Amino acid sequence: MSSLSVSPPQCLLRPFVVPHRLLLGPGPSNVSARIVTAACQPMLGHLHPETIEIMDQIKSGIQYAFQTQNRMTLAVSGPGHAAMECAIFNSVEPGDSVLIAVNGIWGERAAEIAQRIGAKVNTIVTSAGRYFTNNEIEQALAKYNPVLFFLTHGESSTGVVHPIDGIGDLCHKYGSLFLVDSVAALGGSPIYMDKQEIDILYTGSQKVLNAPPGTAPISFSERACHKIFSRKTKPVSFFLDLSWLASYWGCDEKPTRIYHHTGPITALYSLREALAILAEMGLEKSLKRHKDVAEYFHAGLEKMGLKLFVEEKKVRLPTVTTIVAPPGYDWKEITGFIMKNHNIEISGGLGPSLGKVLRVGLMGCNSNKDNVDMILEALSEALRHCHKSKV
Amino acid sequence: MSSLSVSPPQCLLRPFVVPHRLLLGPGPSNVSARIVTAACQPMLGHLHPETIEIMDQIKSGIQYAFQTQNRMTLAVSGPGHAAMECAIFNSVEPGDSVLIAVNGIWGERAAEIAQRIGAKVNTIVTSAGRYFTNNEIEQALAKYNPVLFFLTHGESSTGVVHPIDGIGDLCHKYGSLFLVDSVAALGGSPIYMDKQEIDILYTGSQKVLNAPPGTAPISFSERACHKIFSRKTKPVSFFLDLSWLASYWGCDEKPTRIYHHTGPITALYSLREALAILAEMGLEKSLKRHKDVAEYFHAGLEKMGLKLFVEEKKVRLPTVTTIVAPPGYDWKEITGFIMKNHNIEISGGLGPSLGKVLRVGLMGCNSNKDNVDMILEALSEALRHCHKSKV
Repeated sequence: MSSLSVSPPQCLLRPFVVPHRLLLGPGPSNVSARIVTAACQPMLGHLHPETIEIMDQIKSGIQYAFQTQNRMTLAVSGPGHAAMECAIFNSVEPGDSVLIAVNGIWGERAAEIAQRIGAKVNTIVTSAGRYFTNNEIEQALAKYNPVLFFLTHGESSTGVVHPIDGIGDLCHKYGSLFLVDSVAALGGSPIYMDKQEIDILYTGSQKVLNAPPGTAPISFSERACHKIFSRKTKPVSFFLDLSWLASYWGCDEKPTRIYHHTGPITALYSLREALAILAEMGLEKSLKRHKDVAEYFHAGLEKMGLKLFVEEKKVRLPTVTTIVAPPGYDWKEITGFIMKNHNIEISGGLGPSLGKVLRVGLMGCNSNKDNVDMILEALSEALRHCHKSKV
Repeated sequence: MSSLSVSPPQCLLRPFVVPHRLLLGPGPSNVSARIVTAACQPMLGHLHPETIEIMDQIKSGIQYAFQTQNRMTLAVSGPGHAAMECAIFNSVEPGDSVLIAVNGIWGERAAEIAQRIGAKVNTIVTSAGRYFTNNEIEQALAKYNPVLFFLTHGESSTGVVHPIDGIGDLCHKYGSLFLVDSVAALGGSPIYMDKQEIDILYTGSQKVLNAPPGTAPISFSERACHKIFSRKTKPVSFFLDLSWLASYWGCDEKPTRIYHHTGPITALYSLREALAILAEMGLEKSLKRHKDVAEYFHAGLEKMGLKLFVEEKKVRLPTVTTIVAPPGYDWKEITGFIMKNHNIEISGGLGPSLGKVLRVGLMGCNSNKDNVDMILEALSEALRHCHKSKV
């Protein structure tokens, strides 16, 4: 007689099958075979010497990808949102004034996160597809006197890559830290943490790096660490507390690592290989490839008569392209057609761009002209076959 | 001329090699080949229909493993600590009275997490290796009138499996929710969420389930949901906010899933297979195996003259055994000897048991008599070869 009241679910007794498809949405991207294989290596303990060595290699790889010498460099054991919280939870105390640039969904979410921990949140807002001038940013810094200014580098919801030059300098003139979200852009669009005086920078594993989602590289400048380690209150999260993470990742002065939480060991293997691939290829080559492939794609789209959502060429994000949703079509029918007939994922808008755009991601190993040719062909076929309304 | 100031790190240009070893520490455990293979399946988008189906299968698998009908059942995209924060962040508001049972490190951490979000934290404390009687718990519930009572089921730092029967009833008598951490015990020691009136239960992927670390199954009773969804303040974390997680995991009334964060897709594949293996084997067989193997191990240890840290047989955790550190030996020399000569991980104490015990984990596929024979032989050899002090 069974003492159990819940039976084994039938759905789990069926074999596990996952289809292959080309992921040209805003992420996750496809994972290269080498990175898949890395995750198959034997499990290690989270504080075994070999694991610590892998973590050290990841630190070096992030320092290279971010172009920083920051000692306080590590990977958060979670997705990009966990890194966003790690950045804000540690650098902001209740009552602190924070300034958030909102030109898409990521700014909205950063504002929400800062509000939840009791910060005084001020925003500057511009419409989807636009960006802020340094002059606008300086005015807001002067007005709100924030301890932290948040900016999205690659706004994947709108397809804008935000200019970064000069903003770090402005932040520091007004006594603010400069926090940049580069989840969707890093490795595909230039960013130089030290040179551009960025105080906190993070990205995700599942975009240009082509690793599975679940880890998020992050780095903190000395200026950021000074603010963080002289705070009066503890950050709300123990899991994301930088003083603990620093000991776990060996970023502090202590001679031995301290157990904090159990890191996602095999996800770290993948991240290590993803960063190794970038180091082998060279950052400059990766940046050039994304630029060239995006320009080739954009030219093809315009030749087809499609319109790019971001008008100004220089702020078009090379990793995620936003295309104005073709007038008269239901965008869902287009993405559905391409998935059904070509086994390719592209996506619709998100947040402020919902219903207005199609989004196509060309990131890391997915950033190549063959993929562009394929998606252009698929789009062209979709436009021929999908229903055009008579309105 | 390179525009880069940081060069590709040499350590990343070397091949990636990971040694195999038998992981008989307190976790992570070894990952079975089937689970490794699952994570090699092609990447999918986080809201593709197939991904949603996998998430639904995971929900069913957790409901089976937890023995619950709770609709609010999902996996947190992070390690056990993230699940601990998810449980406390959502169910506790600033100023709420919380009662934490501390008989090892996990209670200490739960107390720390609750303190950080401004709860009034009261604890009952007992020494390492001991547990609380229902009478002691009832007295504390009556005294502190908490909204939440936290208890660790499998205290892996001390090797105690805490009795659960009757405590849910007591909590509800005093208007408290009952939160149980079963990271180290679930699947290896009996726990029945619904029958035992547990309101929030979580575990980790990397113990008995034998999946890589990085996901954490969690479930909430209707009573817990009622408290959570009638709170006046938002939880401090957006990433762990149950109202968002519920929409993402389809645990609410809404017809479509809402993008919240990008889940760790391949880690979900692994978790799906881990839960499938448990469903195929049957929970009762898994529980019996862990019990039998642990008893066989404990008998072997006593035959060798070693002493178990937990005196009372019925509260010895079957998944993680604590052995009194052999008098006269340096415990680090023993664990080092076994790692060096046998390629087996066992570990020392943690928190309150540091320096006092050796810990051996026998979890999931690692719970078998062959492994017991191996580790007994290794321990016996270590005691012959390691230095015994003359003190």
